[in-house]
Amino acid sequence: MSRAQSADRPGRVTIRDVAQHAGVSVATVSRALAGDRTVTPGTLAKVQQAVRDLDYVVNAHARGLSGRPTPMIAVIATDVRSPFVQHVAAGVQEHAAESGRFCAIFTTQGEAKQETDAVRLMREMNAEGVLLVGGVVDSADYRDRVRGYVQTLGSRLVLCGRPSPGPDIPALVVEYDNIGGAYAATSYLLSAGHRRIALITGRHGFTTTDQRVAGYRKACADFGVEVDERLIIADHTVLDRTAGYLGVQRLLREDADFSAVFTGTDTIASGALTALREAGRRVPDDVSVVGFDDLAFAQELTPPLTTVHLPHEELGRAAARMALSNVQTGSGRDHVLLGTHLVIRDSVRPYVRTAG
Amino acid sequence: MSRAQSADRPGRVTIRDVAQHAGVSVATVSRALAGDRTVTPGTLAKVQQAVRDLDYVVNAHARGLSGRPTPMIAVIATDVRSPFVQHVAAGVQEHAAESGRFCAIFTTQGEAKQETDAVRLMREMNAEGVLLVGGVVDSADYRDRVRGYVQTLGSRLVLCGRPSPGPDIPALVVEYDNIGGAYAATSYLLSAGHRRIALITGRHGFTTTDQRVAGYRKACADFGVEVDERLIIADHTVLDRTAGYLGVQRLLREDADFSAVFTGTDTIASGALTALREAGRRVPDDVSVVGFDDLAFAQELTPPLTTVHLPHEELGRAAARMALSNVQTGSGRDHVLLGTHLVIRDSVRPYVRTAG
Repeated sequence: MSRAQSADRPGRVTIRDVAQHAGVSVATVSRALAGDRTVTPGTLAKVQQAVRDLDYVVNAHARGLSGRPTPMIAVIATDVRSPFVQHVAAGVQEHAAESGRFCAIFTTQGEAKQETDAVRLMREMNAEGVLLVGGVVDSADYRDRVRGYVQTLGSRLVLCGRPSPGPDIPALVVEYDNIGGAYAATSYLLSAGHRRIALITGRHGFTTTDQRVAGYRKACADFGVEVDERLIIADHTVLDRTAGYLGVQRLLREDADFSAVFTGTDTIASGALTALREAGRRVPDDVSVVGFDDLAFAQELTPPLTTVHLPHEELGRAAARMALSNVQTGSGRDHVLLGTHLVIRDSVRPYVRTAG
Repeated sequence: MSRAQSADRPGRVTIRDVAQHAGVSVATVSRALAGDRTVTPGTLAKVQQAVRDLDYVVNAHARGLSGRPTPMIAVIATDVRSPFVQHVAAGVQEHAAESGRFCAIFTTQGEAKQETDAVRLMREMNAEGVLLVGGVVDSADYRDRVRGYVQTLGSRLVLCGRPSPGPDIPALVVEYDNIGGAYAATSYLLSAGHRRIALITGRHGFTTTDQRVAGYRKACADFGVEVDERLIIADHTVLDRTAGYLGVQRLLREDADFSAVFTGTDTIASGALTALREAGRRVPDDVSVVGFDDLAFAQELTPPLTTVHLPHEELGRAAARMALSNVQTGSGRDHVLLGTHLVIRDSVRPYVRTAG
């Protein structure tokens, strides 16, 4: 009930605003929205346009059975082909099923319009939870969108797997220790004596990339190792095999001096392993490799991959729980940070200076 | 418009039925469904119960802006962690985005109730397309459910990646040549001289499994090779690495005589490769392996996997197109069968009789 009340807060667009905007009476708007067939097509069109212009949300009571919220948690993410999205969504799905709710997954292909459209649909349906899942380009436009979502969805909106957009936007956040994971991976390589560590990850500007680069830099700084910017390859939008494959090829082509590679995802690592194998560089004897994610296939790569474990399913469950629990921002429960840790397998060897 | 008309066909539950069931007037039901606050909570509860009992779908005109259908195509599948589901859904998503619609993915965990609930929600929302995606246990209960879905959704329902439930259920179907793919894989191994071919796939009773076993049997029959039932391992529900790993371990434990393994998915193949490697059996020198799916990782396995290519994305696009095009059953356009083909890589060698 608290949600219905919060939706009635002052400042909301009302049916009166719609009537004024459309130049018709409130009763006409009411009849138009109720599907009354005595409303002429011209008037209906004017009302519909006003509704769209003002972003008016039809009172849930007029829209469905008794205006109850739709028992649904929406996952809004870039692409369902992303393993991150799949596993987080599976966690949301589990929590949704346990609590008698639907989990619906919407993908945006990274398009702002697809995201705002999906949020709007979920708002119209009065969905109980709306989760924005995965890393994002943290732009002014993005912050404006999130500010708007928070205003209309309140505590039903949770950002999952991305950082808080800042203290001025009271969004609920469930994230994982991305910087800490990258720090652990890099310092493990540094502890093994590696000093020339290449980093292959997604494009700069993405929250996910920037945090992993930050963890890498911090570890280097703590070990007193100067970062060689030429060893940081962060220009692929998609975190796929190709990014790893081409990243290693570029390092080799530029004759870069490196004894280890830390990759932003296990999938990038698998492409990197292929490129290293093709170039005759043995892993881990010649080059050590560390991944990020700990997906199931990581242990079946050749060699089994040392990687950072990320609690994907638990991220999804925690975000779903938060969306349903009506947490208030500033309550101290509005930001959850889940831990990450290194899983050690067979893709790292202590650094040995090779002849020549 | 034809959809709105078909929804008005005789036999549909009407507001009069709801009123009679609830023991109130039609006007009261109307007011209750419109969210009129003068309706007492007791009466509202009676109406709500009658709506649920009779599975009454509130007239779309009373539910949303001008009663337009929600521009959405729903994918209803078992689990988003299935690569099959991910790639088919990506195809649906692409077509949906191109045609200005949402794609929403609902997962059921194989539970009939979750499926019927999701279909019902999509019907209430007047979604433009509802796709049931992936293999299924073809039971009487399943057929009854599909019969019901066809009655309420008509040509908005498309079965995708599973066979027609039979001539008495006029469901639209977009499937791939599953039997043909399994036939191609098995006859490729037979042509290479293999006669003892193990088959590791999902559980009997699933449409996907049964069709792959049928293709395998047909190829053996055409080559005059008697099937040794002990070489068919089809007891895992989930088509994952574990099924392949444990399947090979069982063959080895039972001291089965086999020179090749055909697996129901690339993922099963990757588990089989691990078990063979651990047992010291070299692939392809000692044992040949063929997968099914042609997922991206298949070419990065050791050795790169020969497998059956399945047109996942195109399946999704074709199913989405069919759901939106108002195809009539019996029109000759109500059943699409997409081809599959073998992709030859390095996991098969001609059979050589080994000493002993």
